[in-house]
Amino acid sequence: MIIRDAVEGDLAQIARFFRDIVAAGETYAYPEDLDDQAIADLWLERPPGRTVVAANDQGIVVGSAKMGPNRPGRGSHIATASFMVDPAAQGRGIGRALGEEAVRWARDQGYRGMQFNAVVETNAAAVRLWQSLGFAIMTTIPEAFSHPRHGLVGLHVMYRRI
Amino acid sequence: MIIRDAVEGDLAQIARFFRDIVAAGETYAYPEDLDDQAIADLWLERPPGRTVVAANDQGIVVGSAKMGPNRPGRGSHIATASFMVDPAAQGRGIGRALGEEAVRWARDQGYRGMQFNAVVETNAAAVRLWQSLGFAIMTTIPEAFSHPRHGLVGLHVMYRRI
Repeated sequence: MIIRDAVEGDLAQIARFFRDIVAAGETYAYPEDLDDQAIADLWLERPPGRTVVAANDQGIVVGSAKMGPNRPGRGSHIATASFMVDPAAQGRGIGRALGEEAVRWARDQGYRGMQFNAVVETNAAAVRLWQSLGFAIMTTIPEAFSHPRHGLVGLHVMYRRI
Repeated sequence: MIIRDAVEGDLAQIARFFRDIVAAGETYAYPEDLDDQAIADLWLERPPGRTVVAANDQGIVVGSAKMGPNRPGRGSHIATASFMVDPAAQGRGIGRALGEEAVRWARDQGYRGMQFNAVVETNAAAVRLWQSLGFAIMTTIPEAFSHPRHGLVGLHVMYRRI
């Protein structure tokens, strides 16, 4: 597997698992049924942000991450990032590799910290992964996410210094 | 003073104190030097959001608030809001009136909570005001805001159930 900068030509592959993941409704508060252009607007970051893809040995895109400043102006020294792994390719360390890449990039860019604004508390694999990469749960906003099976669950704010 | 829905014709008056407040650099992580159109894009909410203004007895706009869902999709039952009061009109209860209006609106709209994502910790008057309106400091992201006098200060995440 390699991680490389996303290009326009990756959009169709990203959009496929993006829609699957949003439709499953367990991890992201994005609108459903977005067309490719709307997904591009949401996911393909322009500088100072960056979007990468993880591609397997056959060149298939199996995951993606976007990263950039969490806020503009006087908050732009704290980064944020979002991650998606094709559900068919989970459990192979792709999320971890993308997370490590995001932290490495943020350090190279001179960010002082990285904040995740909305990690669904029932997404235990993701919470454990981010904790193992040094992120702490700063707080949990109660009942802030409508989960299709668990009902209203909390959203963690997670953070680590860079 | 009255609080009413903002109209396009209010933009020039909003933009004046918007620029003063952002240029002062003590409360908002917005980019500086935004033109009127960029301020409109940032501040004038379309449904399901809403922007209001506070107008004094002479009809002058002395404050404004925007409100709406904090996240789309599965997070859209939690509201957020932002507030600006003309620095020349501070200390007259305008911020409190706007805050009360935002909470009332969120209740009417059926939101379950309201979250402020980034309250500058040194903005003591605002922190006290939101606390008096029932908001709790859920966490403070350290050094997340670059203050022109105090250097790097924290950003509070504040929340109240509606």
